[in-house]
Parts: sequence; structure tokens; C-alpha cells
Amino acid sequence: MESSLKIKAIIAEEQGAPDVFKVGEVDFPSNEGKENYVWIKTEATGINRAETMQRKGLYPSIPGETDVIGLEAAGYLVNSQEEYTSGEYKNNERVMALLPGGGYSDIARVHKDHLMKIPENLSFEEGAAIPETWLTSFQLLFLVASGKEGQTALIHAAGSGIGCAAIQLCKKVGITTIAVASTNEKLELAKSIGASHGINYKENADFSTLVQEYTGGKGVNIILDCVGAQNFDYNIKSAAVDCQWVLYGLMGGPKVPEFNLKSFMGKRIQLLCSTLKTRTNEYKADMITKFSEQFLPLFETGELKPIIDITLKYSEMKDAHEYMESNKTQGKIICTNDL
Amino acid sequence: MESSLKIKAIIAEEQGAPDVFKVGEVDFPSNEGKENYVWIKTEATGINRAETMQRKGLYPSIPGETDVIGLEAAGYLVNSQEEYTSGEYKNNERVMALLPGGGYSDIARVHKDHLMKIPENLSFEEGAAIPETWLTSFQLLFLVASGKEGQTALIHAAGSGIGCAAIQLCKKVGITTIAVASTNEKLELAKSIGASHGINYKENADFSTLVQEYTGGKGVNIILDCVGAQNFDYNIKSAAVDCQWVLYGLMGGPKVPEFNLKSFMGKRIQLLCSTLKTRTNEYKADMITKFSEQFLPLFETGELKPIIDITLKYSEMKDAHEYMESNKTQGKIICTNDL
Repeated sequence: MESSLKIKAIIAEEQGAPDVFKVGEVDFPSNEGKENYVWIKTEATGINRAETMQRKGLYPSIPGETDVIGLEAAGYLVNSQEEYTSGEYKNNERVMALLPGGGYSDIARVHKDHLMKIPENLSFEEGAAIPETWLTSFQLLFLVASGKEGQTALIHAAGSGIGCAAIQLCKKVGITTIAVASTNEKLELAKSIGASHGINYKENADFSTLVQEYTGGKGVNIILDCVGAQNFDYNIKSAAVDCQWVLYGLMGGPKVPEFNLKSFMGKRIQLLCSTLKTRTNEYKADMITKFSEQFLPLFETGELKPIIDITLKYSEMKDAHEYMESNKTQGKIICTNDL
Repeated sequence: MESSLKIKAIIAEEQGAPDVFKVGEVDFPSNEGKENYVWIKTEATGINRAETMQRKGLYPSIPGETDVIGLEAAGYLVNSQEEYTSGEYKNNERVMALLPGGGYSDIARVHKDHLMKIPENLSFEEGAAIPETWLTSFQLLFLVASGKEGQTALIHAAGSGIGCAAIQLCKKVGITTIAVASTNEKLELAKSIGASHGINYKENADFSTLVQEYTGGKGVNIILDCVGAQNFDYNIKSAAVDCQWVLYGLMGGPKVPEFNLKSFMGKRIQLLCSTLKTRTNEYKADMITKFSEQFLPLFETGELKPIIDITLKYSEMKDAHEYMESNKTQGKIICTNDL
């Protein structure tokens, strides 16, 4: 049996509430059988909704990958175990990456094609706010849907990291956005980064009335939906003909009590279900290349900016998840590595 | 008031059963306010499911177009009312076209970009079997879905005109097809034109078991579905990851009693609703150009062939619709003009 280096990580020995997290140790992630992989010495990680699902046991880790949670990180590129143990990695590039898991540990294994260089003007915290959130928004808008200039998009959970990224990407491309969120503060944030309209769904459960008003009765061409069943009928009423309705989460439950297909046929609605974590390495690499070419340079010019709500520590992961589940976030929750 | 030429047509003074049809007269369709339109002296028309819906009042005619039913025709190109009345049109080109209506009349108005030349080796009857049926199949497989070589497609109503066209188009492109139909005779026809497998849904209501067997447990990449609610759950069980499920009819009803979005999310299913009649003129023209370039030449070489079940007369439109509604057809019902 080979000697194995232990590394610090936030681990959960059982599934459940945020207090299952504790600081622990895991094996250094071996690259055996994993061609083309490198490591990141993590400096910061972004917290994602999918990670709260994984903590609760509702979203399994990818087979063959670490059980340590964490879908994105920013830190230093590490090419070998020696670079890590010697501290030489500090001379390497600052990178951010989409991870198959392991973001909550001191060193995370990553496919070399899933790395992006952190723009020079951005901190590690800002870098950690980009991969999962911005790549997901990019994917939903431009790879799953075919968003283009002149369209109107309805953005649910506009205060989330994905929502804030989607609003900025839409503005850059010339897509008008209608933001939907639970508080007026979130809607103010959404408008400050480019949303044309905001709808507080606590005050307007049937948001479609306002959507129709804001679109002159035409409805929206794109819906970014992480809610699901709870808004199902209102989304149908909000849709324009040929609407591309991208479903990427089920925060409002999965069960639609009755689905009348006529309502879909009449508008030629496209319901496009998407997840990012389970896509192939090739899909992710291609997406990262496209995003890097088209949008990453705009972070350097300040035209796009990661929106960070709060920065905590890895050792405060319990608080980070509790805050995520409070549904009060405005932008990303970031944790910096204090392991 | 201008003098108007009367033309013969199959008309329906009320909505209802097939016996509402009778031979009557309507005004020659004026081109006033319709730039870029010509006429077809119809020699044959194909009967379509959507036309039975229009007869019953469930699918309105397009605003600004004739109320005379008929979505496709083959005949002679007519450039002016004079050409029609003088009989000169018989020297003109033999054309087939997607119509906004009017196929059941002696002369039908059509956008000049919606015409196709009838391949020389095909009769008017065969020409009339192409536009709606083949363009719909082409659209569903390649414009709505993104069908490509190596995939597997589940073709419902495989004995229909659209089904028979889809099987041939798939075979040409290298897409394996699994045909679903109500009789073994229809399945034999489907196999004779290229289907790899056939499933009789009267014997296998839950066709998904056989679909999983035929695909080695992977499921299908494409579903062409004109049935809707009745097969909804079986289609979910038949779908591969990233399945593109094209819904273009609701012969099995519109109401799904419970829709669990989780089942869609788990496979990243795309439910793509489509109709052809209500698309813009530009969409139709573009589709016809693409189809004409890619597939029309293959009718001349005999690699693709319109499958005609029965040929009747315009004056037998009642029988034609009754046969369509018997769900016994194997290929197209064509009516030749005896007005």
C-alpha cells in the first residue's frame, strides 16, 4: 500500500443539516487513472445551491470523484504533490475552476481543461465567485437556450449568484431582463446591474400579469427557472410564442398537479432541462473555452463583475450553508481557506 | 365592387363530422395586399390530421387566408387569373407547395417561396404527398430537434404520412428508428422503409420496456410524439439522457394528471413543442430551401419515396376524412381534383 498524504478538508460524516460539517482530513487526491488532471491549492470557494442538496444526500457525488463537497474554487495551480508540499505552487498561476467536487478541501483535483486564469484585477474571492455561477448562466442562456439580442428573459431567483450573472450577461448581449425575487432589496440589486424590471413574487404570486405588462402582451422569450412546480402555470402564462424555458432547479418542488399540454403546444414552448455537474468533461471544456473567449475579458475591463454578498471561512461552512438556505442572499457566498 | 371569378372548392358551411363537406364555389383568391404570391391550379391534395381538426373547428384558419381547408397541393403554377381562365397554365411548371389553406379548391394561392418543383419522375399524386408531410418530418427531426447520425429515434404513429417520411429521413441520415403503431401491418410497412424495430402499442401499452431492450438500456435520443398525454410517462421512461422529445400533436389527449419535473431533470429531457401551420412565411421559406437542397434530389434517385395508402377524389373528401379518422392509414391519403 502506498503512503498517502493527508490534507485538510471540510467533511460531513453523515447527511443532514449544515451542522454536519466539521474540519477533518482526507487523502491527497491521487491522479492514478486520471490523465490530464492537475490540482488547485484552494484559496477560496463559492457556495452553491447544489452543494446544499449534496449535503442533504439529494445530489450524489460524481462516481470516481471525491466525496468532499465543492463545485468551484480559486487558488494556485499545482502540478505535482511535491509542488504542494514544498510550497512552490505559490509561484504558479492563479486559477479558478469548475470542479467535480473537492472545493471544500485544501487541494482539489481538476481536469486541466476546466481551468481558467483569474483576471489580474480580481482577487481569489472574486475568482471563486465565477466558475459555477457564471458558467451555469452562460450555459443556460447560450448553450441550452439560444439567447440573442432583442429578446426578453425572465430571471427567477434574481438575487442568487446565477441570477446576478445572468442579468449581466443578458445586458451585455442586448437581452432585456425581468428579475423575479422575494425582496425589494434583491430587486434593487438586480436593477443596479442591468435588469429592466423587477417583480417581487411575495407581493405578486402570479407574476405573469406584470410580465405581460412589461412585454406589451408579448411574453418573454427565455425563462431561467430554478423553482419548478410552484411557478409552473405562471411561467406558461408569461411565455411568448417559441419561448425557451430552461429548468435548472426545483426549489419550488417537482410535482405539477396537472399539466395541460395544449398550453405548451399553443405557444410552441420548449421546456429545456439542464444540469451542469453531470455533463461530460468534453462538454465542460468546450463551454469553458467559449466562455473564456467571449466573456472572461470583460471582467478585466470591469464590464462584468462577480457580485459577492458575504465572505466567510471554510471553518464557517455551517454558517455559509445556513445563509444559503435562508434564501436571503444577494449574490455569492464565498469562503476563504483557513484550513 | 369588382367582378369576382368563382372557382370550385370543397367547402364546409358548418363545423362537424366529415359529411359537412360538399362541392361548392368560392371567390378566386385575390392577391390584393399579398405581394409575392402566385397560384396553383390544383391537381391533387394530401389529407392531413390538422385538416380534420380544422373541419371540427379545433384549429382555425390563418387570419387573412382562405377558409377553404387544405395545407398542401400539387398542380400547375399559375401566374395570373388570365393564365387560369385561358388554360395556358398547362404549359407552366409542375409544382407542389405548402399552403396556408385552400388545397381543397381548384386554385390555391401560395407564397412564391413556398413552392417546390415536382421531381420529374413523380406524379401529381406523389407530389401532393410531399410538402406537409415531409417538410413537417424534416422540421421536427432537424430544425426543432437536432437529429444526427448515430442517434436513435422513437417514431410514434409510424404508419402515418409523417411517420413514414420520418423513418426514411432518419435512415438516410443514419439515425436508427423504433416505430410504434397500432397494427403489425403498419409495423411491417415501417420496417420495409427502414425502421429497425417495431412496437405494437396495442400489445405493449408500456412500450418503454421494449425501447430499453432495443437500445441496450440507453433509451432514445429523439421522440417524435403526436400522441401526448396517453404516452407521457412511457415516453419519459423511453428517453435517453439529453433526449429531444418533439411534441407535434395531441391525439392521445392533452391532460397529464401529474407531472413530476424530477423525471425530466434527471435525464435533462427537452420537451419541444412544434406546429408548422402558424410559422412565419420566412421560417417556411427557409425550411423549404434547406429541404429542397438536402433531400428533394433523393426523390429523383428513388432513395426517398412518398408512401401513398389510397387515392380518392376531391368529391370524396368525406370518405378521405373518415378514413383518416379511422386511424387505419398506412401512408398518405391523396385526393385528385375532379371539381
